[in-house]
Amino acid sequence: MSHAADIVTMSAAEYMREALKEAELAYQENEVPIGAVLVCDGKIIARNHNRKEATNDATSHAELLCIQEASKVLGTWHLGDCEIYTTVEPCAMCSGAIINARIERVTYAAPGIKFGTHLSVVNILDSKKFNHNVKVTGGLLEDESAALLKAFFQERR
Amino acid sequence: MSHAADIVTMSAAEYMREALKEAELAYQENEVPIGAVLVCDGKIIARNHNRKEATNDATSHAELLCIQEASKVLGTWHLGDCEIYTTVEPCAMCSGAIINARIERVTYAAPGIKFGTHLSVVNILDSKKFNHNVKVTGGLLEDESAALLKAFFQERR
Repeated sequence: MSHAADIVTMSAAEYMREALKEAELAYQENEVPIGAVLVCDGKIIARNHNRKEATNDATSHAELLCIQEASKVLGTWHLGDCEIYTTVEPCAMCSGAIINARIERVTYAAPGIKFGTHLSVVNILDSKKFNHNVKVTGGLLEDESAALLKAFFQERR
Repeated sequence: MSHAADIVTMSAAEYMREALKEAELAYQENEVPIGAVLVCDGKIIARNHNRKEATNDATSHAELLCIQEASKVLGTWHLGDCEIYTTVEPCAMCSGAIINARIERVTYAAPGIKFGTHLSVVNILDSKKFNHNVKVTGGLLEDESAALLKAFFQERR
């Protein structure tokens, strides 16, 4: 059986649905509901969600945890053949980590109005000023992600 | 003995010398020589250096590792009473992590010409667009840090 035959390619929306499942896990754990999956050669090699409160660590964002896990799985810091699907526009830390890890493409769902670093606050993610150019697509399944965030914050008011 | 009596306050230059010691350790480990120390109530509670190659992880920067360690030490993600000394102007990832952790003050030595996110490439670190305002001082012991970086890259040419 060829290597190619092993690869079950999912659509972008299917990957994002997996990221949304992670966001729902965060919600259940009383964390701001953000999830991500990291894909290499069509396969999800890392998946995680925001764990900031559980770990008492402001760096425990979904995307950063996925990058750390994927680096372990692949045994390299260079994730140039990988892409990441995240339910919210990445913050400065996560955009920076995506650039540092040379991730090829980012697809996100909802805007991160107060912290997003693609279109919302500033542009880091596909800024041409850095030494790596990430391809970015926003708005995939935006409504689902935004509804989850809205429910979470309404419940806490 | 009062709590205050326990605190041996070091000067900013002394903290930076400790960060430079970490940068020298990185150099010896064939890592880009960048080091950092994280200070709370006058005491160094975390210290680390760039470990990207050793860990195969692009997120293993000195500042990020210090933030993760300090969060463990203090048992909270909120490092509002802390300051960080780093030998190079932080990258986007580290500036974002500093903002996420609500660190009060950053002091750095040399500019990060290709990746720095205070004055060099873009401004994240003390941008007023985010929900936390970090106080920043650059240039402390700049020559020592720059000399270390220069020696490292010249050796590898």
